[in-house]
Amino acid sequence: MAGGPNDRAREVTVVRVRGASGRRVPDLLAVEEPLEIRIHQAGTRAAEGERNVAVTMRTPGNDFELAAGFLYNEGFIRGSGDLADVSYCPREDNVVRAALACDSSHIAARGADARGEQLPASSSCGVCGKDSIAAVLATIPEPPARGGAATGPAVDVAVLHGLPDELRRHQRTFAQTGGLHAAAWFDAGGGLRLLREDIGRHNALDKLVGHALLAGVLPLGDAVVLFSGRTGFELVQKAACAGIRFLAAVGAPSSLACELAAELDITLVGFLRDGRCNIYTGADRVTGVG
Amino acid sequence: MAGGPNDRAREVTVVRVRGASGRRVPDLLAVEEPLEIRIHQAGTRAAEGERNVAVTMRTPGNDFELAAGFLYNEGFIRGSGDLADVSYCPREDNVVRAALACDSSHIAARGADARGEQLPASSSCGVCGKDSIAAVLATIPEPPARGGAATGPAVDVAVLHGLPDELRRHQRTFAQTGGLHAAAWFDAGGGLRLLREDIGRHNALDKLVGHALLAGVLPLGDAVVLFSGRTGFELVQKAACAGIRFLAAVGAPSSLACELAAELDITLVGFLRDGRCNIYTGADRVTGVG
Repeated sequence: MAGGPNDRAREVTVVRVRGASGRRVPDLLAVEEPLEIRIHQAGTRAAEGERNVAVTMRTPGNDFELAAGFLYNEGFIRGSGDLADVSYCPREDNVVRAALACDSSHIAARGADARGEQLPASSSCGVCGKDSIAAVLATIPEPPARGGAATGPAVDVAVLHGLPDELRRHQRTFAQTGGLHAAAWFDAGGGLRLLREDIGRHNALDKLVGHALLAGVLPLGDAVVLFSGRTGFELVQKAACAGIRFLAAVGAPSSLACELAAELDITLVGFLRDGRCNIYTGADRVTGVG
Repeated sequence: MAGGPNDRAREVTVVRVRGASGRRVPDLLAVEEPLEIRIHQAGTRAAEGERNVAVTMRTPGNDFELAAGFLYNEGFIRGSGDLADVSYCPREDNVVRAALACDSSHIAARGADARGEQLPASSSCGVCGKDSIAAVLATIPEPPARGGAATGPAVDVAVLHGLPDELRRHQRTFAQTGGLHAAAWFDAGGGLRLLREDIGRHNALDKLVGHALLAGVLPLGDAVVLFSGRTGFELVQKAACAGIRFLAAVGAPSSLACELAAELDITLVGFLRDGRCNIYTGADRVTGVG
């Protein structure tokens, strides 16, 4: 329990109950606040044609990364060159404005269509996992070569087993509040490159990808990315957009997450804890397993 | 590990790693598939003016409940009387059609604006937690009386401590896959009334509320609702819509979840496990604490 209240942890008084005895004590909560993301064309005044593309509940901090990662992962921009500027609105709280150097008018209709609603307009045959996977294949910036030699990092199994402890050691706000997800970027040797925490696990990955985008180091083809929770379809989708080839998670994957990872030749590891794990796809990237 | 593959669990082959040794074994994954929810006016042909209002990734099963709960919690309908019919589309997979007896054209703009994006259009002062809370207060069907006598169930602390074991005992698909959230409805004596599992925790609550709506027993003012995970703002928002006054969770709440619960006089319990918990708001509804 390091540290006190800050932007990401807020102190409240709670009744702490142990068996049948309770007492009022101070406690720290993970802060949740909305963030509005707006876009406009670079070179125009923001007031003209500015558009709200998302309001997301997030943990304050790394807001520019969150906005950049969101815009990238949702297809509004294709790279750092499409993002002329990111800034806080000077007169309004919790509003980030992005000036786009690209024309995003073709995705105007997607305005509020964010976070978990990213399927194509329904076809006459309904929707299914195959449609969802096809939609991702059609939109990710750099689909992997089919049948080529395996790319992406090779990770020794001993290194893999060490990642959750390393993640936990650096989850500062989680240690205070127990209330945050984390996404961490490691190199193939297990060195921690970046960790982002957020009340939303999608946001944690958006922040991580946004950081890489703003730093000009996308795609993340050599990264080993670890999630603190479970892995669903949309997390694999976002990872694929960022070129990530190696995903591990402390929790379980879903069926569709595994299907998408298999389709894209992404390594997907689940239940990584206590010296154990399951490898669902791309097992050839984990070395030292006998 | 009861049972085999079914609609909610799919068998795959994984590499199960223990230390440095791995072997290929069968394993079960939580099934994730999209569900499209469409609405049209009752009395018109579905083909005329039918509108897609959401595509959500969900665990198959209880789809009508999910659709009903979603439409209720998102404000498309105000009660079971507004829902003339719910059915699967006969020609398309994973599509549920709801015939509405009410006019929902005023919320047409919210079409795809689902799941986590439910804030009002941005005002000139930006967005903040207070705005989010004000928006909920303006939209929930039966806001609680201010300063009135406490309503909702009183729960003995011994009963409260017993709920997580009862939840886990009935989480059938979680036991198979480790990959599902659950929302459970107990009576004040700890008797399990209903449990719903889903890959999305919002979906689990939507299913639970949808069940109550279709059964004609909303609002759930006497229910004790337990979540398997953490509690964020939107879960409290949905619970408030359904009239729930007592919320407990195995995980942590967020700051904004606690603020909304306090504003609405909802009891919010977190970290409920191993004979311990924290009571964040409405501690008067937990009895037997010395």
